[in-house]
Amino acid sequence: MRSFSFAKGHATMNNFVVILDRSNALNLSPADVRWICDRRTGLGADGLLRAVKAKHMPQWQGPPDLWFMDYRNADGSVAAMCGNGLRLFVRYLIEEDLAPRDEVFVATPAGQRTVWERYDGRLRATMGQVSLDDAPTWVELGGRRYEAHGVEVGNPHAVVLLARDDNLGGLDLARPLGFDHGRFPEGVNVEFVVAGTPDRLRLRTVERGMGETYSCGTGAVAAAAVAARALTGRAEGDAVVTVRGGVLDVRLTPEQAYLTGPATVVARGEATLPD
Amino acid sequence: MRSFSFAKGHATMNNFVVILDRSNALNLSPADVRWICDRRTGLGADGLLRAVKAKHMPQWQGPPDLWFMDYRNADGSVAAMCGNGLRLFVRYLIEEDLAPRDEVFVATPAGQRTVWERYDGRLRATMGQVSLDDAPTWVELGGRRYEAHGVEVGNPHAVVLLARDDNLGGLDLARPLGFDHGRFPEGVNVEFVVAGTPDRLRLRTVERGMGETYSCGTGAVAAAAVAARALTGRAEGDAVVTVRGGVLDVRLTPEQAYLTGPATVVARGEATLPD
Repeated sequence: MRSFSFAKGHATMNNFVVILDRSNALNLSPADVRWICDRRTGLGADGLLRAVKAKHMPQWQGPPDLWFMDYRNADGSVAAMCGNGLRLFVRYLIEEDLAPRDEVFVATPAGQRTVWERYDGRLRATMGQVSLDDAPTWVELGGRRYEAHGVEVGNPHAVVLLARDDNLGGLDLARPLGFDHGRFPEGVNVEFVVAGTPDRLRLRTVERGMGETYSCGTGAVAAAAVAARALTGRAEGDAVVTVRGGVLDVRLTPEQAYLTGPATVVARGEATLPD
Repeated sequence: MRSFSFAKGHATMNNFVVILDRSNALNLSPADVRWICDRRTGLGADGLLRAVKAKHMPQWQGPPDLWFMDYRNADGSVAAMCGNGLRLFVRYLIEEDLAPRDEVFVATPAGQRTVWERYDGRLRATMGQVSLDDAPTWVELGGRRYEAHGVEVGNPHAVVLLARDDNLGGLDLARPLGFDHGRFPEGVNVEFVVAGTPDRLRLRTVERGMGETYSCGTGAVAAAAVAARALTGRAEGDAVVTVRGGVLDVRLTPEQAYLTGPATVVARGEATLPD
């Protein structure tokens, strides 16, 4: 019987289980992660965030006293970064008195990130550099081919800018999406965006391996970068991005992208892994 | 801020949040129930089981010291009975030392039920009397009309007995189901059953207002009664019923139906309702 403490919460409806495993002793297998995330027989979540002191993670070469965010998808696989998960991770650390409110440095497989609590209680996080690809690409949906823009935000995105009067809500994103497999051999996250103005976007995201989701943090950043460049000539500035699960604010500078949004811990408890 | 303690668990993959509210003080609104059961922003469950001392439930006229099972669907509505929920409810009471293992009497809106823990750890529950309707009825799926049998197990069921070589797994139960609205004005739960022998059934259930589910306790009882009568002439005896979420045992006697199956508490914790 392996028991553990957990918290559960969400960030723009992207929902996670958080587990404190300070000394990297819990030894969760992919099957354990799948059980934890299973909505019928386990705790139920889109993914698992494990908080480990960075010095106990052999692959981490940076400051040893940071908290390392070990993110796992619901299928048990490892992912390097999750923008919404990062906010919930820091919210959890703050509420558990494991980190200060004003500036939290987090170790991740994608590098170090910084998160602040803002005056309104939302959290702002650094998202690394955004890299726009100038070569055009495409996405196919329901027999129609859309022009798309390739963007790298730690993970690959293909962003489709729709016209202002296109029916974003009417797109049937449950249908299979086509994309250029030669260009994105490991798959790609796809964003469909309507930009009223460069700083007001509406967004729907299809995450690779998951289908449409309520919110994708890196997708919001990718969409804001593409819209800003298309409408102003430069991938800079602020944008308010409305996703299915809420509202995210994106700030783009030449050095760094920032993502601001809510994150809420809704429950804490104890669970026991099945034998 | 209203905080509460909860447990989470499942019975043949039918999953529930259990809340101890001994003196009926928590005052959960339908919106609160919807939040608790929401899989994105709340705890996530098919339904909520609230444990209240029966003397605090004004509608209960029976023994005052029983535990009353107040069952709510995920949409916030009240249901009189849930066979899988009843087992998890008693499992929780036993693990919390609120009830003995050998015989637990539970007050429900459908009357008093009795639950025992068996030698193998599974729980057996009384399910009340089963009432088979002799008038034929029908169910329509994908343009095909099936002969069906009406059964009352506290709630209404229409049971379709398929042939042994019918492809139960291939039925597309995501499509709309047609039924006789004049006969079932408040809707009906529909079971599709393949009976290898009278005592070995495979079952898929479409619950009214929910679509296909992994398991329905009253559906297993209804299916066993129809199969036994069709194959032996009497709605009596034992049957092993395989549902999507596991295996249930049904015993039918002229006075009473019994349902036996697993139930597991997987987590315990504290949560706070949103303001």
